[in-house]
Amino acid sequence: MRNFIPALASTAAALFAGHAEAVAANPLPKPANITWGTAGAFSVGTLSLKAPDHDVLQDGFARATEAFSELNWIPQATEAPARKFEAFPTPTGTASKAKRQYGNYTGSLTSVNVQIADTRAALQHGVDESYTLEIAPGSSSIEITAETVYGALHAFTTLQQIVINDGSNKLIVEAPVSIQDAPLYPVRGIMVDSGRNFISKKKMFEQIDGMALSKLNVLHWHMVDAQSWPLEIKAYPQMTEDAYSPNEVYTHATISAIVKYAAARGIRILPEVDMPGHANSGWKQVDRGMMACIDSWWSNDNWATHTAVEPNPGQLDILNNKTYEVTGKVYKELAGLFPDSWFHIGGDELHMNCYNFSTAISSFFASGKTMGDLVQHWVDTAIPNFRAQANKTLVMWEDVVISPDAAASGLVPKDVVLQAWNNGLENIYNLTRDGYRVIVSSADFMYLDCGYGGWVSNDPRYNVQTNPNKTDGTPNFNYGAGGGSWCAPYKTWQRIYDYDFTQGLSAAQKQLVQGAIAPLWSEQVDDTVISGKMWPRAAALAELVWSGNRDATGAKRTTELTQRILNFREYLVASGVGAAPLMPKFCLQNPHECDLFLDQAALHTA
Amino acid sequence: MRNFIPALASTAAALFAGHAEAVAANPLPKPANITWGTAGAFSVGTLSLKAPDHDVLQDGFARATEAFSELNWIPQATEAPARKFEAFPTPTGTASKAKRQYGNYTGSLTSVNVQIADTRAALQHGVDESYTLEIAPGSSSIEITAETVYGALHAFTTLQQIVINDGSNKLIVEAPVSIQDAPLYPVRGIMVDSGRNFISKKKMFEQIDGMALSKLNVLHWHMVDAQSWPLEIKAYPQMTEDAYSPNEVYTHATISAIVKYAAARGIRILPEVDMPGHANSGWKQVDRGMMACIDSWWSNDNWATHTAVEPNPGQLDILNNKTYEVTGKVYKELAGLFPDSWFHIGGDELHMNCYNFSTAISSFFASGKTMGDLVQHWVDTAIPNFRAQANKTLVMWEDVVISPDAAASGLVPKDVVLQAWNNGLENIYNLTRDGYRVIVSSADFMYLDCGYGGWVSNDPRYNVQTNPNKTDGTPNFNYGAGGGSWCAPYKTWQRIYDYDFTQGLSAAQKQLVQGAIAPLWSEQVDDTVISGKMWPRAAALAELVWSGNRDATGAKRTTELTQRILNFREYLVASGVGAAPLMPKFCLQNPHECDLFLDQAALHTA
Repeated sequence: MRNFIPALASTAAALFAGHAEAVAANPLPKPANITWGTAGAFSVGTLSLKAPDHDVLQDGFARATEAFSELNWIPQATEAPARKFEAFPTPTGTASKAKRQYGNYTGSLTSVNVQIADTRAALQHGVDESYTLEIAPGSSSIEITAETVYGALHAFTTLQQIVINDGSNKLIVEAPVSIQDAPLYPVRGIMVDSGRNFISKKKMFEQIDGMALSKLNVLHWHMVDAQSWPLEIKAYPQMTEDAYSPNEVYTHATISAIVKYAAARGIRILPEVDMPGHANSGWKQVDRGMMACIDSWWSNDNWATHTAVEPNPGQLDILNNKTYEVTGKVYKELAGLFPDSWFHIGGDELHMNCYNFSTAISSFFASGKTMGDLVQHWVDTAIPNFRAQANKTLVMWEDVVISPDAAASGLVPKDVVLQAWNNGLENIYNLTRDGYRVIVSSADFMYLDCGYGGWVSNDPRYNVQTNPNKTDGTPNFNYGAGGGSWCAPYKTWQRIYDYDFTQGLSAAQKQLVQGAIAPLWSEQVDDTVISGKMWPRAAALAELVWSGNRDATGAKRTTELTQRILNFREYLVASGVGAAPLMPKFCLQNPHECDLFLDQAALHTA
Repeated sequence: MRNFIPALASTAAALFAGHAEAVAANPLPKPANITWGTAGAFSVGTLSLKAPDHDVLQDGFARATEAFSELNWIPQATEAPARKFEAFPTPTGTASKAKRQYGNYTGSLTSVNVQIADTRAALQHGVDESYTLEIAPGSSSIEITAETVYGALHAFTTLQQIVINDGSNKLIVEAPVSIQDAPLYPVRGIMVDSGRNFISKKKMFEQIDGMALSKLNVLHWHMVDAQSWPLEIKAYPQMTEDAYSPNEVYTHATISAIVKYAAARGIRILPEVDMPGHANSGWKQVDRGMMACIDSWWSNDNWATHTAVEPNPGQLDILNNKTYEVTGKVYKELAGLFPDSWFHIGGDELHMNCYNFSTAISSFFASGKTMGDLVQHWVDTAIPNFRAQANKTLVMWEDVVISPDAAASGLVPKDVVLQAWNNGLENIYNLTRDGYRVIVSSADFMYLDCGYGGWVSNDPRYNVQTNPNKTDGTPNFNYGAGGGSWCAPYKTWQRIYDYDFTQGLSAAQKQLVQGAIAPLWSEQVDDTVISGKMWPRAAALAELVWSGNRDATGAKRTTELTQRILNFREYLVASGVGAAPLMPKFCLQNPHECDLFLDQAALHTA
């Protein structure tokens, strides 16, 4: 019978070459500093907690201890060097595997001591998330220190991942360990889009569970879009007439429940109401007069005059005073509902063609003004209006500053945080050069929806029976290219993790990079598939922004991440997060046998 | 409050232009002939069944009636012309929607009469699946005729989809209807791969449920592969030591349960054991001596000498007599376990480099023999050996006849059915020209796993920070191209449905095309995501092979399929099949507003 205990070559420890440890536990994201001792394993008993009195702490500890007790986790993918292979073409060697053995236990862990410097720190941008975790040889206690309860939550998550099943259903920590850990960036997140398709509270919770396990801390919630308005607004109750159904609405109570669930796990919710573009549903129930082009045909069967990048079209009329009254009230109500001091007001993908349907704006253009002038008017009017309602840090998509239709005078306040999504490194460079704080969401690396093909119907481009470029192999719509996905190819975990998003920046520019958020646009996502499209790829991002993608020597450690993320995917599934498999399970059980190069440094020299 | 009853433009009926009906029900696949009357709707009461005594019939009827009673289905996407849009750029019109109203009921349905010509017909290739279903004006009965119980099952499935909720929780059939229906092809299927990752019995059942609802009838089960052997073989019990775990094994009892579940729904199981390539797990537990290259490094860090297309490598040694003894016994045992008269013996992707690791084959090559000679030896030895164990129709991948390593003498028996997967129309043409019966599985149109990016690790090709072809836009690995997926782009439902796979064939060649099977290779698929990757795209294939992709005028009807498949996806989810969303729900609720072209004939003239 096959040995299902994690296998390890007997000489593995000597061969780890700095990219793995001689233990099976492999927490993700990899801590900034983790040092395992050699004094042997600890058994883990019922752990008593000694910590400051704080609900977040007590609840977080209960979740962590329940997790390792209930999962009784046997690491599913453990690190080891690739086994030996016969040379080509002459046989020279054979495979070998050895069962991992834990020696005598050097201690029995029965308590956790937590010291927090500031138990009252609020969950806001920049809150200190550092922690230390120490298990000394022979000790019966786990010592945790943190500046805030949110750092301590991360310590519990790490603890949860290093308490494992020794293969005989005994919970252990494999060795004495010393961890000093803190994130590289204060903004580490994913984006959920509930405007294109509804995402239930249950599935929102599931995403939050995955985030907590991977130490992500910002859930960017793109709540509404042109297609639907699932958001209760008490000031304008008619807006939810553009929800897909009465059951597909986030009430204030639902939102508060999601905010609370996230906060208990150290996760901020960054709400977005996309304005003045991507606007149709909801708004039009308040006043059709403040809308442009909502009865236009989006593509116009002629791309030069399309009114939106996708169905259905609609934008708020920037020259209509009603627009500011309504957006202001919506913002004010939501600003009160979401405790975070940041608020995202959208600002992407405005289309000039849409405004051909506004009489006022047509006159504005006829007077010699440009689209940039119009966008500047929005910035100059809307931002002060929002600030008057509630003084929060505003986040916007980069378009308002760095697109063909950017605000003409460039007068976007420097305290607006910009989310970069186009042109990869180039836009990050330009935005930080101009002094803006930036959240990295580069589509070429981080858009989790890419590669699925287009979703619009009546599309003749698919109706091609033979490869028109068969002779020269040039990629085209249906053969070797994007197949209708504007941002193909699919972004794999390796692609995401390999992104050096501060490459080429000065020290001052690097200081302006707040972190990264991976968006999952939901034209082809709802409850059925959201977790499989989000996870475990979001975990690759999580490690990228927590402790980076390089080892102590500065070499890129993507290959080292392999077994860690394969194990973490199984851990997510066991924890109720429906993450997709990245590889055949064979790869998980046979370390590095599914690498493209046996040369483990292939990536470093690429 | 929004009207959630399906909306329809009041003048819609006059505008349907042959591609839709004035009813909300829209069964998928579209029947060959369906004519709705104008005499008004029928209420549906408790239906009594009058039919021959046959378990398949009684059970199928119970499933259908339970389905419409429990789902109480309100069609989620109904057909209608796109609404009116304002011209660009001058406003000229407005939108209008009208609520669908059903008039007085013309009858109340209380019974179903089923007449079957041959109740003893076996579920085998070519079994008659035709049926008629009639509901006459004023009638209280539904009249079904079929040649076999399997045709009657399809009638029940159609019935299940036309009995709908009128919006006030009353079950109705919207109008008198007359259906004469039969499939275009006898082989209509999907392929599940349980060799790369395990698929549980529960998820196999779920795929079968989706198949029954879409009138697919062949489940091609790629049971094993190099990565794992999840298949109990009593002759060689040690083979399941290469299952991923003891819980990830299909016992004889499990297999029989799956066969039975499928048969009750009119679905054949076509089992595949892939030989002599894609062979490692399982076989090597019997005799490592009959294996080649299982201890080689698959890519050799040098593609010219790779031993397999993906990890892990391994092939049966064609010149070792033990190979025939073992493959014969495995075949014999499985041939008895699966009642279908067809059996798939694989035969794809043999790699010559792998055989450099076989002493016997190296000598064979040294004597001047070719890879084609070796493959011919396999064909000449293995096929008679299998036939001696159990005389079934053998199915093989096309490679044995139409690849660089095809059997040298071309002596593959003409009664072997070949599954075409490369080069689209070209290989279908060549194989049928040579007289082979063909199952269409063209990768460019039907591989459901395409477009997800590569899965092998330690892959330096992702480690690229800026687009090397930014200037000229040429697609490359990470920008605008496949991103590691060998068969990118992702195959959308439109791409699948648009495939005219008999284009260019003579009448005689067309007769040889048995149908089509859409494969879902499972390197990145397991229970968590299988249903979302399979469905509803497999339903586009289902209609393609049931009633084709053209309307009565010969025009391609992909655009007509839009609302039908959007509704069907919701129906799948409601029926417990976790199908993925194809579009924002907005598109479902607003017919054709998510088309690329408002011109509904755009596809015809492409």
